[in-house]
Amino acid sequence: MKDQPLAVVLLSGGMDSCVAAALTRSTHRLAFLHASYGQRTESRELKAFHDIADFYHVQHRLAITLGHLSAIGGSSLTDSSMPVPDADFGSRGIPTSYVPFRNANFLSAAVSWGEVLGASAICVGAVEEDSSGYPDCRAEFFDAFNHVIRTGTKSSGPQVVTPVAGMSKAEIVLRGRALGAPLQVTWSCYRRDDVACGTCDSCARRLRGFQLAGFDDPIPYVHKPVFAAQ
Amino acid sequence: MKDQPLAVVLLSGGMDSCVAAALTRSTHRLAFLHASYGQRTESRELKAFHDIADFYHVQHRLAITLGHLSAIGGSSLTDSSMPVPDADFGSRGIPTSYVPFRNANFLSAAVSWGEVLGASAICVGAVEEDSSGYPDCRAEFFDAFNHVIRTGTKSSGPQVVTPVAGMSKAEIVLRGRALGAPLQVTWSCYRRDDVACGTCDSCARRLRGFQLAGFDDPIPYVHKPVFAAQ
Repeated sequence: MKDQPLAVVLLSGGMDSCVAAALTRSTHRLAFLHASYGQRTESRELKAFHDIADFYHVQHRLAITLGHLSAIGGSSLTDSSMPVPDADFGSRGIPTSYVPFRNANFLSAAVSWGEVLGASAICVGAVEEDSSGYPDCRAEFFDAFNHVIRTGTKSSGPQVVTPVAGMSKAEIVLRGRALGAPLQVTWSCYRRDDVACGTCDSCARRLRGFQLAGFDDPIPYVHKPVFAAQ
Repeated sequence: MKDQPLAVVLLSGGMDSCVAAALTRSTHRLAFLHASYGQRTESRELKAFHDIADFYHVQHRLAITLGHLSAIGGSSLTDSSMPVPDADFGSRGIPTSYVPFRNANFLSAAVSWGEVLGASAICVGAVEEDSSGYPDCRAEFFDAFNHVIRTGTKSSGPQVVTPVAGMSKAEIVLRGRALGAPLQVTWSCYRRDDVACGTCDSCARRLRGFQLAGFDDPIPYVHKPVFAAQ
């Protein structure tokens, strides 16, 4: 174990990054990084972060605050005057939940920490195919960021890996269950921090994933809409 | 004026970013962004930031805190147990004042703000030729970061510009004086926040620049070493 390389996992507290961590721990020692940025559910996400870290006995954990992202605004996740819309799977636009250039802020902090720790990887739970069209969740963004790391760090720096990027939400559920990942302590809802709403974009995609995988989502919901198989 | 494009200027409070702002204001409206990150002189730099913003009557100003950079450590600027060494112009290594991947953290915040404001440029006062060998101050780093912006923002996003990157410190002094930039309110010292030490890397490079330009530096110093012309 001690000879394994180290990965800094960007762990939001949601299902995707939890399963990304579950996949990465077979090859890497883990350090967990969480970022609060004034999002509506930040305290609930932070609890999920620590619950997942406790489950995996991860000692190296760093919870940071990027308060400027809420000061800057421009997103329904950080601006309480903008409503969080219901999911619209047919939409091809970028939803209001997009937080401008958020992932670059997260990755930069992770690389700073990873460079000091001597990490070889920055693990991110981004999902491309099943995502909401956020520009900073695409493979070309992560590829470009890896080039920035190579040019901007002391040695060659860690590299970003996205182990669940190519999976659908249903595959993530199946893989997570197969690995015994603690999905019951994760939190994905954009709107609420007590009982998940079930209808925001993040809840709906998660619930649809569980339904397509043929399993019940273990966390409590206000509503559990039924999604037709695609 | 109203039709000019907007530039977000990363303004540390030092001489280089002040002159970069002075150059940019002929073509752009300005928004000033300052980041505190637990560096030894953070309150003095923040004062310089506001003094420069007052001088140029810049209303759009945002002072952010990136506390994780000091929590992460790895630099003599943020770790009080590491001494800030004297300047060593002959050294080819990366000095201990390097803050891991700092500029990526700064740029990411600036792009997030710039995307919301509709800025076309992110102006950075990085100086390549006369810098200290920081990897995140090189042209190839900024070029790579611009590709990240193009891939990771809603439209094409703002682009990073480095108007003083190709100048020596002496040229920056001359250009700043010619433009009437308020060099007297800037602050560059890494060590002290009352009177500049004169011997840290940042002070020494600044003082040598003034001497080669043939002018007195208007800020107070504990020591004013004399540097031979190169």
